[in-house]
Amino acid sequence: MGNSDKPLHRITVLGAGAWGTAFAQVLADAGNDVTLWAREPEIVRSIVEDRRNVQRLPSVDRLPDNITATGDRSAAVRDAQIVVVAIAAQYAREALESFRAILPQDAIVVSLMKGIERSTGQRMDEVVCEALALPRERFVAVSGPNLSKEVAAREPGATVVACCDIEVARKVAKACSTPYFRAFVTTDVIGVEMCGSLKNVVALAVGMVHGAGYGQNTAAMVQTRGLVELTALGVASGASAKTFHGLAGIGDLIATCGSPLSRNYTFGANIGRGMSMQEAKELSNGVAEGVPTADAVVRMGKELHVPTPLASGVNRVLNEGLSCKRIFSELLGSGPSFDEE
Amino acid sequence: MGNSDKPLHRITVLGAGAWGTAFAQVLADAGNDVTLWAREPEIVRSIVEDRRNVQRLPSVDRLPDNITATGDRSAAVRDAQIVVVAIAAQYAREALESFRAILPQDAIVVSLMKGIERSTGQRMDEVVCEALALPRERFVAVSGPNLSKEVAAREPGATVVACCDIEVARKVAKACSTPYFRAFVTTDVIGVEMCGSLKNVVALAVGMVHGAGYGQNTAAMVQTRGLVELTALGVASGASAKTFHGLAGIGDLIATCGSPLSRNYTFGANIGRGMSMQEAKELSNGVAEGVPTADAVVRMGKELHVPTPLASGVNRVLNEGLSCKRIFSELLGSGPSFDEE
Repeated sequence: MGNSDKPLHRITVLGAGAWGTAFAQVLADAGNDVTLWAREPEIVRSIVEDRRNVQRLPSVDRLPDNITATGDRSAAVRDAQIVVVAIAAQYAREALESFRAILPQDAIVVSLMKGIERSTGQRMDEVVCEALALPRERFVAVSGPNLSKEVAAREPGATVVACCDIEVARKVAKACSTPYFRAFVTTDVIGVEMCGSLKNVVALAVGMVHGAGYGQNTAAMVQTRGLVELTALGVASGASAKTFHGLAGIGDLIATCGSPLSRNYTFGANIGRGMSMQEAKELSNGVAEGVPTADAVVRMGKELHVPTPLASGVNRVLNEGLSCKRIFSELLGSGPSFDEE
Repeated sequence: MGNSDKPLHRITVLGAGAWGTAFAQVLADAGNDVTLWAREPEIVRSIVEDRRNVQRLPSVDRLPDNITATGDRSAAVRDAQIVVVAIAAQYAREALESFRAILPQDAIVVSLMKGIERSTGQRMDEVVCEALALPRERFVAVSGPNLSKEVAAREPGATVVACCDIEVARKVAKACSTPYFRAFVTTDVIGVEMCGSLKNVVALAVGMVHGAGYGQNTAAMVQTRGLVELTALGVASGASAKTFHGLAGIGDLIATCGSPLSRNYTFGANIGRGMSMQEAKELSNGVAEGVPTADAVVRMGKELHVPTPLASGVNRVLNEGLSCKRIFSELLGSGPSFDEE
C-alpha cells in the first residue's frame, strides 16, 4: 500500500508502544516515510533488523518498508515535517522537554496520547504545547475508537483529527488516511482531549457494573448517563457537544467498554467483585487511569457547577468503600424522578 | 415491594410476552394493581395458578401478588386507567381493533412496542392511535435499554417515557418508577419511536461486522456513524437530536448491540459469515426486524434528502449479495476524506 515514488511527508513517531507502532504503519501505508523513535535499543534493533516490534506489537509479522527506527533523538526529528507523540501520558512532559531544542521550526506536532497529567491536572494539548513551547496552531490531537491491535490488522476504522487551524487538521487527516482508516477533522481540540481522557471513568464504572453481576441494561444506562455527564462538562469548558456524540466520544467509549481486556474495565470489574483498592491495584500492577480521572471529573464539576453523579459515585466506591450496587441504585435517584432526560 | 394499601392505578397490560410480563412486574412493584391479558389460556392459567409465566419469562420464580391475568378482553380493560400494549409490532393493529369499542373513555394507552408496521410503513404511535381512534394526548411510548430478563431480575435500569402532554408522561413515569427502575420523561414521541425501530438496522450491521471477523473498532465506527445517520433522519422528521443521544437512542443501541443473542445481531452475524439471506432466514426462523427496517430507512432518507450510507450498504448486502467487507470499506469513503465529523 501507499509507497508512491515521492513520500507524502517525512514523519517521526516518538514512542514505539503498540499504538505508536500501529499508527506508524497507518502513516506508512498512506505513503509517508516514517521514522520511529524509541528509548529501548532492543525495540529499535528489532524494527530495523527484523522489520517487527515483537516487544510491543507482536501481532504484526512485517512492518512496511517505509518505516525505520532510531534511538537517536536528533537524527529522529532532524528532517521531520510532522512529529507524532505516542508516549505514556504521565511521562510525556519530561520526554518532550528533551526534544524541545531540536524540533524543526515548522513541524506539526500530533498527539496520540489520552489522559490528564496527574501532577498538574492538565490536558495533553496543554502539556505538549508547554513542554515544546509549541503554538496552538501547530498542535493536533488524534483520538477515536482505535484499539491498536485492530488498527495494526488493518480492520476498517475511523478516527478524529483536531486542530484549531482546520487546514492543519486536514493535512494530518490526509497523511493518515488509507483505504482501511478514515480520518474526520474538527477544530474542537478541547472536546477531543476531554473525550479521550474522561471516558476512562465510564469504562471503570462499566467494569464495576459487570463485576457486580449486572448486565447490559445497567451498563447501557451507565454509558449513556456517563456520556450526558461528560458532555455537560465539555460544553461548560468550551467544547462542542457534537464531539462527544461522535467517534472520539461515544465511539471511543463503545470500543473501550466493549473490550473487556482494557485496564480500566478490568480494574472496575475487580472492584465490582468486591476487591479493595489495594487488592485491585496489586492485580493490575498499579491504579488504572480512570481512578485519578474520577477525581479530576468531580473537581471539574465543582468548578464549573456541573453535576457529576457518576464520577462522584465511582469516587465514593474507590475512596469510601461504598458498594458498587449502592452507587448504581443511587444513580437512579431516590424515589421516582420525572426529569426530562 | 410496592404494595401499599391503595393501589396507585389499575393498569392492564395487553400481551404476556417476556417484556409485557417484566414490565407488569415493574408496575406491580411500583404499587399498581396489574392485570395481564393474554390470548393463550395456558399462560393465563400459569400466571393465575402458579404465579409464573413459564412459557415466556421462566426466569421469574414468583410474580408479585398484585398481578392477575385473564383471557377475557372486556374483563381485562373494563376498569383500566392505563392500558399498556405489548403485542408484536406486526400484529398490533389487528389485536388493538378488537379492543377499540371496549376501551374506557379516558384510559391512557402506553406502547412498549418497537418497530415499523411493514404493510403501511407506519410507526407504532400511528398504528395505535389509528387502531384505537386514540387522541395523541393519551398516547405514551416507553422505550430504552430494557432487556426483559434483566428488568425482570430487578437489575438497575432506566427508560424514557414520551407523550406530547408532559403531564401524562409524568403520570406514567411515576406509575413505573421503582427503586431499581427509573423513568425519564420527554415530549419527543417521534424521536423515541424512531430510535426504537431504526436501531435494528445498526444492530444488524454490528452483527455483520463481527460475523465478517472484525472487532471493536469497526463495530464502534458502525454504531457511531449509524447513530449520526439515524439522528439526521430524526431531526429531518421533526424529532429532537437529544433523544437519539439519550437512553432511548444510544442507550438502547448499546444494550442491543451488546446482547449477542438478539435476533438482529444474530441474523447480521450469519450474513457476515457468508450465509445467503435464505440460509440466514431458515436459521432464524424468518427475517429479523432490521431487514425490512433497512429498506424503510433508505426510503425515508430519499424522501427527506438525508444520506443513509449505512442502511444503503446493509440493503445492498441483503438484496444484491455484496460482501459485508466491501460495504464497510465503502463506508470509509473512496480515498481520503477531510469532512468534518
